[in-house]
Amino acid sequence: MEEYSPSAPNVSIALLHYPVYNKNHDVVATAVTNLDLHDIARSARTFGLNRYFVITPDAEQRCLSERIRSHWVDGYGATYNPKRKAALQLITVADSLQTVLGELEKKFCRPAKIVVTGAQDHGKSISAVELAALFEDKDQPYLLLFGTGWGMTKAVFDMADHVLEPVKGLGTYNHLSVRSAASIILDRLFGNR
Amino acid sequence: MEEYSPSAPNVSIALLHYPVYNKNHDVVATAVTNLDLHDIARSARTFGLNRYFVITPDAEQRCLSERIRSHWVDGYGATYNPKRKAALQLITVADSLQTVLGELEKKFCRPAKIVVTGAQDHGKSISAVELAALFEDKDQPYLLLFGTGWGMTKAVFDMADHVLEPVKGLGTYNHLSVRSAASIILDRLFGNR
Repeated sequence: MEEYSPSAPNVSIALLHYPVYNKNHDVVATAVTNLDLHDIARSARTFGLNRYFVITPDAEQRCLSERIRSHWVDGYGATYNPKRKAALQLITVADSLQTVLGELEKKFCRPAKIVVTGAQDHGKSISAVELAALFEDKDQPYLLLFGTGWGMTKAVFDMADHVLEPVKGLGTYNHLSVRSAASIILDRLFGNR
Repeated sequence: MEEYSPSAPNVSIALLHYPVYNKNHDVVATAVTNLDLHDIARSARTFGLNRYFVITPDAEQRCLSERIRSHWVDGYGATYNPKRKAALQLITVADSLQTVLGELEKKFCRPAKIVVTGAQDHGKSISAVELAALFEDKDQPYLLLFGTGWGMTKAVFDMADHVLEPVKGLGTYNHLSVRSAASIILDRLFGNR
């Protein structure tokens, strides 16, 4: 197994299962989806990120996520498909956004800047090009936040240092899966085109 | 429900479950994955494509795919989440690549050009920018082919009019899910950036 030296060592991604809205705008915790772990880990590995944090306050959901991770990293999956191991070993399962921010601050000796993503336009939106330029300061950790369900709550948006402009096609329809949106955004930020 | 007028009416996407390689380079038919239907349909709808063809020679797998599609297009899902209906109604389930090519030829009165995608570099690769320019000829239908398993067979690559350059990060790792790769490629071809 080759050693991993991330090309974006100061940038991590997180998938937030709480606090997010459901269809009726209630604040809920959503369930972890197996393919969210795989697809986003594979994208994070392809584009050279530091870590992929899977955040849920539900202990059973964390246990499930950890079991999936360890199947591919330490278990049978690691020899069956080493490429999958290389991706899923970027995963850290965490109980809250605060825990993740604390972990990043401990590692980098300064607080991470939070960048939220979403399907809606927002007052403080910045473009992928602008954000990629900010990432050039490798001493500054960044955490790219993706929501599940019907999107992250206003409280999370209010915490953000930056809001990334939404991904759009040519029409008005923009209901990408979080797996697709994360892949496209990482390509826009880091893709070799 | 708003009427759909695709911004790329001459471009369709297809997900091929046969003929593809498995891990040992045998030619196999892979199983349909629920989230391949959802995620790629949502991306196809966001980026304004004509159709999304799900191709499998297995009658039971076609039946399953059709049941998922119709749940969201005609069944309970259509009222529960109309945005999902708008995406999944782009799906056509088909038994072979030949059937799809025949259907496109009937609709456009000329054969579709086949564009294959894959993780490997290839002699006749073209860039996303070059391909987007070709798509401007709206009378010419195009079929963008994505493989499952360990990739489409050499026979499919040999049929192709064009091979799209692979998606790459900055390192050597490129093992994206087909859902991620399709999303990134549609964004490169049609995204409003």
